[in-house]
Amino acid sequence: MAKAASAPLPTGSVIGVLGGGQLGRMLALAAARLGMRCHVFEPEANCPASQVADHTTTAGYDDLAALLEFARNVDVVTFEFENIPDSALDAIAAEREIRPNRRSLATSQDRLAEKAFLASLGLTVAPYAGVSTMPELQQAVATIGLPLILKTRRFGYDGKGQVRLKVRQDIDSALSLIGAVPSVAEGFVEFERELSVIAARSHQGQIVCFDPGENVHVDGILDTTTVPANVTDAVIDEAKAIARTILDALDYVGVMGVELFATATGLIVNEIAPRVHNSGHWTQNACAVDQFEQHIRAVIGWPLAGGERHSNAVMKNLIGDDVNDTALTGTAGLHLYGKAEVKPGRKMGHVNRLSKKTP
Amino acid sequence: MAKAASAPLPTGSVIGVLGGGQLGRMLALAAARLGMRCHVFEPEANCPASQVADHTTTAGYDDLAALLEFARNVDVVTFEFENIPDSALDAIAAEREIRPNRRSLATSQDRLAEKAFLASLGLTVAPYAGVSTMPELQQAVATIGLPLILKTRRFGYDGKGQVRLKVRQDIDSALSLIGAVPSVAEGFVEFERELSVIAARSHQGQIVCFDPGENVHVDGILDTTTVPANVTDAVIDEAKAIARTILDALDYVGVMGVELFATATGLIVNEIAPRVHNSGHWTQNACAVDQFEQHIRAVIGWPLAGGERHSNAVMKNLIGDDVNDTALTGTAGLHLYGKAEVKPGRKMGHVNRLSKKTP
Repeated sequence: MAKAASAPLPTGSVIGVLGGGQLGRMLALAAARLGMRCHVFEPEANCPASQVADHTTTAGYDDLAALLEFARNVDVVTFEFENIPDSALDAIAAEREIRPNRRSLATSQDRLAEKAFLASLGLTVAPYAGVSTMPELQQAVATIGLPLILKTRRFGYDGKGQVRLKVRQDIDSALSLIGAVPSVAEGFVEFERELSVIAARSHQGQIVCFDPGENVHVDGILDTTTVPANVTDAVIDEAKAIARTILDALDYVGVMGVELFATATGLIVNEIAPRVHNSGHWTQNACAVDQFEQHIRAVIGWPLAGGERHSNAVMKNLIGDDVNDTALTGTAGLHLYGKAEVKPGRKMGHVNRLSKKTP
Repeated sequence: MAKAASAPLPTGSVIGVLGGGQLGRMLALAAARLGMRCHVFEPEANCPASQVADHTTTAGYDDLAALLEFARNVDVVTFEFENIPDSALDAIAAEREIRPNRRSLATSQDRLAEKAFLASLGLTVAPYAGVSTMPELQQAVATIGLPLILKTRRFGYDGKGQVRLKVRQDIDSALSLIGAVPSVAEGFVEFERELSVIAARSHQGQIVCFDPGENVHVDGILDTTTVPANVTDAVIDEAKAIARTILDALDYVGVMGVELFATATGLIVNEIAPRVHNSGHWTQNACAVDQFEQHIRAVIGWPLAGGERHSNAVMKNLIGDDVNDTALTGTAGLHLYGKAEVKPGRKMGHVNRLSKKTP
């Protein structure tokens, strides 16, 4: 039986973080502000989070002995990414509580399960169908129509593991393009804007949502998030209500990113991420307590902060060479991830530009 | 000859920090936001900064081999406290540039030298006299009058190494109370408010001042800093001008805390601290770039941020048991230092409460 972490953890407790990328790094920095220690588990040596964590285990997710040792040396476990193998989670869960819970992880690891879960809550999702074979794909095209997007059920991110089918000729090559793995066909949504809500839930069920941000993607990667989003108060309220419904249904503990499409006929849930989210980075400079600290607060059983923003914000991702462009990096609200090598498409940092708060 | 650090240091550079307390910890966290690594040098094991620094050397300031090794492994050296032995600074300076410079350190390490320096700039200081013997103390009392404060020239902080002389009978015991070390007698200033300016200067001479804060001390330890201070714009401008004068005169690089008394007849400079300062902690939540990042920016040769505040703020220190008082810690702008043991009078953390910006 895993050790329960329902009482608030005291200052100086050790938070285990699976994954040592920039999200793990920023979680560790936020935890440090609360006097907590972080122990990062990450296969790659010299990862961004290791530079700021109190302790790092460099081992693979198939190294069950290392995972057990890691779990025994921390007070609670959280993660920066959702694609953690079940066997690794099993090993950890035998020793320590994992927050957010396994169900939230399992649901978001599989696009088909996620769609079915969201639909079961009465939320609107794009028309979808599970697809593993050519006849299933043909059936999906017949039902959903074209254009549609074929996405792998597992391990997709930042536009990877996706292919768009525009015309009937695309059908033949589509499955092989994504590697002939179990997939989901999704109807193409004509959206006006893409929004995301960063929401937090405590283990007592308290929910706090940050204001929805408006996202612009370039080449499948988030480019900017602007807050406030250019939508009505009613849409903002609906977006937050959707997030609440999802978090409550999963008995969720921690921060979740909920991506939404705003369409002429209402909000459609695109996907959920059971972790801090790139589209919530604006909170670092525009809120007294940001998404990273909010997540840590939930994970250690502390009361959540209010989530109010004191300023408007535009978050701009610094991708690849952007990081060397002083016109982008400027001087305000700069966050760099300590990655030694600049690569095209690599997230190197981001910058938050603030302006006076509007209602 | 020390390696010059006049070109901006690239992301991933290593900043050496002398001192591993809460100021070193928050410097390391700020450096991490810019993708920098910190190497902390601190005699005490398991210090607050070591939990978040990329590397820590645990050694004394008399361990010249450790200091040399430390200096050779970093790109530039800064510090979180001013009472660093000259021999340690000599060892480091032979290898790496120290920012702020030695002159700034030497001036602030000696209250008598500091007073003389400030007076030489035409700034108003309290009447003062160097005192090492009883005849000198009697002469100081005759010149300055009572009450006066006798302070050790070196190693005083948070009200330590000070004794107040109110009546003539106090004279006899005063020198022995502070240990009969070289001291300074200072005239007692009837001030209306205590202000501080946190100012930064780049190696190119750019100076940015945060808005002056109004400080309240309890038992000789800072209790709160409130921004904006309840003074006129003219006083704010004068306070910033005083800071500029001091930083320029020292060819200063980094952040300095300048403590001022606002009196009926104008501003009096109380003391300067050549480092980030407790009275600048409010900037962490009320400015896009706080005093810690501003200091790091100066030290690594990056452009300084603008220093504007987006919100009003009250910083409250959490001393000893305060840290367990949830009415104080609340949920907003909490910063804890990772100190394992709560002791009376020990700075455990602080909390920044924000409110809407007023002009």
